[in-house]
This record gives sequence, C-alpha cells and structure tokens, in this order.
Amino acid sequence: MFPAKGVKTSSIPGYTYGSKTLATSPVSLEDLARLESTVLWTDDDVAALRRAGEILGPQADRILDVWYGFVGSHDFLIASFAGADGTANPDYLGAVRARFAQWIVDVCSRDRDQEWLDYQHEIALRHTAAKKNLTDGVSSPASVINLRYIIAFIVPLTATIRPFLAEQAPDADEVEAMYQAWFKSVTITAALWAEPYSPSW
Amino acid sequence: MFPAKGVKTSSIPGYTYGSKTLATSPVSLEDLARLESTVLWTDDDVAALRRAGEILGPQADRILDVWYGFVGSHDFLIASFAGADGTANPDYLGAVRARFAQWIVDVCSRDRDQEWLDYQHEIALRHTAAKKNLTDGVSSPASVINLRYIIAFIVPLTATIRPFLAEQAPDADEVEAMYQAWFKSVTITAALWAEPYSPSW
Repeated sequence: MFPAKGVKTSSIPGYTYGSKTLATSPVSLEDLARLESTVLWTDDDVAALRRAGEILGPQADRILDVWYGFVGSHDFLIASFAGADGTANPDYLGAVRARFAQWIVDVCSRDRDQEWLDYQHEIALRHTAAKKNLTDGVSSPASVINLRYIIAFIVPLTATIRPFLAEQAPDADEVEAMYQAWFKSVTITAALWAEPYSPSW
Repeated sequence: MFPAKGVKTSSIPGYTYGSKTLATSPVSLEDLARLESTVLWTDDDVAALRRAGEILGPQADRILDVWYGFVGSHDFLIASFAGADGTANPDYLGAVRARFAQWIVDVCSRDRDQEWLDYQHEIALRHTAAKKNLTDGVSSPASVINLRYIIAFIVPLTATIRPFLAEQAPDADEVEAMYQAWFKSVTITAALWAEPYSPSW
C-alpha cells in the first residue's frame, strides 16, 4: 500500500479508511470473492493493478482534471455538487476531489480485506440519502446520487484511464493488462457501491 | 435492424420485443439520453456498434457457448437456473439462451427508442421477483438475480467479445472502436436493468 505522492492521507478531510468508527460492511468476504470470480479476476490482475497504481497514483491530479471536466460539462452531473443556492459548491467539489484522488490510489494499492470492504460500504452510504452531504457539511438539494450513474460511470472511469497508462507503459500488452485490471476493479467497486440501494443486492 | 441469421425472432419463446402487451418503461427517453451522455456515447459508436453486429450476430451461438461455459463453471451463477429439484434446468437454460442470442443482435442493431426502452424494462423485471421464472414456466428456488451480478456481468459480457471481433475485423483500431461501442451499450443496459431494484434508481 502507498499513499498518493505528497499526500498525507490523514490530512484528507472526510477520508476515514481504516477508522474504528466505520460500520461493518453487510457484504461478506465470500460475496466479494464471488464478485471477483464474476469479473474474471486473476492473480495476474492483482500484479497489473499494482503496476497501474505506480503510474496512476502520481498522476491522480491530472486524472481528476479530466473527470471533473467531464462532470462539469453536464448539468445533470454537476447538479450532485449543488450547494444550498442550487449552484455547484466549490468547497464541496474540492473536498470530494481530494478523496477521489486518494480513491485512485486505494483501488490500485489496497488489499481487498474486511477494512477495505468496510470503507467501500462507507463510500456507498455517502452516495445515498443516508449519508450524502454529511461528511462535508453541505446543505445540498441533491440528496442522493442515483444508482444508474453509479453503474454508468464505469465507462468514463475506465475509458479515460487508458491514455494515462499508455503514455508511460512500455508496450500495448502491458497497457491492456493494466487497463483490464482497472476495468474489473472499477466494476467490482460499482457493484459494492450499489449495495445500499436495493434489498435484492 | 436485422434478426440473427437463420432465426425468426417470432419463433423464440418468450421473446416479446415490440409487443403491445408490454408495460411502458418508467425510464424516459430523456433519462436514456443522459445515460448515453454519461457513457460518452457518440454517433461514431452507433456506426461501430452496427458493424459489430454484422460480426457478432452470425456468431451468437458461439458466443453463448462461451458465456454458458462461464456460468456453468460457477455454482453461484448456475444456481439462477435451478429447477424445482435445485439442479440446473436444461429447458430453462435453453429458453434463456435463445433470447440471450437474440439480445446480442438487438444490442447492436435496434434503435434505442420507446419500444426498445419498454423491452429493456420487461427484461429487467424478468431478473426480479416480479417476473423471474414466469416467462418460461419454471418452478425455481432462485426467485431473483441479485443486482450485484447485473452490474458485475458488464465485465464478462464485454471482455469475452473482443476475440470474436478481432478474428474478423481488419485492424486493431476497428476492433477497439467496436469493442468500446459494445462496452458502452452493455453498461447502458445494466444501468437500465437496475431500475426495478431501487427507488433511488
């Protein structure tokens, strides 16, 4: 495991990975293992994901520029970051951005153990009416991120990563290996983040 | 639009695309357009998807061999096809398989209009307690496909398609274009199929 270059994770407001205060995820390690099997996860993916992290971690800020540019260019997406006045709240955007950058690092570098599951559950709740806006003390008219965007975001979070891998990786096969490991990991994450939305999860 | 080679769609049991008996989808065409924007959908993707369909449609049966091989190799996946005795029901597997093959063709060739939305809604319901097992008259202990697998299946339904495209497409850029259009389309489909699972869809 490694933190983002130059980032003390303890300095990120609202980032509570590993905190004793987190609730235990309702998702079991067996559920997780089944999800990994479903996305064709292999030991080679673990290694490729770690290598991807060495490339993506130091570029997290540039990646967030791309993602925030995308969100900012669509009214129905940026609406999730509205403050009390109905317009995008820069403090809210900034606070989420810092955790989102750390998320890139965590996806690539953390072991998927109980602590990891518990923090995915925490993030999942922060997309729902149960916890959205609380972490950053925002008074927002947007009380939930709709489930459909948790799922649909698999594409932009995956497709936009390839150029960052390609500009530093030695060959096409290596880019593809890292890209597929990232794709699988983002999909596992989306599946876990869907948990609070449905009794038939 | 084109049916699978040698397949009269009207001959597929339970395939009710375009039927007047279908309920209107609760998803609007505007919702759909937003989903398409979220997965970075472009006119180039429309064209690439149509070309993918020309390759994939005639190979649908081989693709289903791969997908059913995958499902059959995991107890927790094949369990969804259990009959009353708790073991996989061949008739149920066969009936779903025929519609699944047609689904490949439909993904690539159908316009995403109201009729398309209504049938996605019908398929979505057939994964849930509302309609699972009814279409094929199966008495199954598996009353729902869990939401997490609707999402996680984005990976195997996407990753396994590339070899089928690659063996017939002229160059790597063309394979990539068709592959990305397919990936985006499968993700849109998963997002739509998630609708009945959550009030915060």
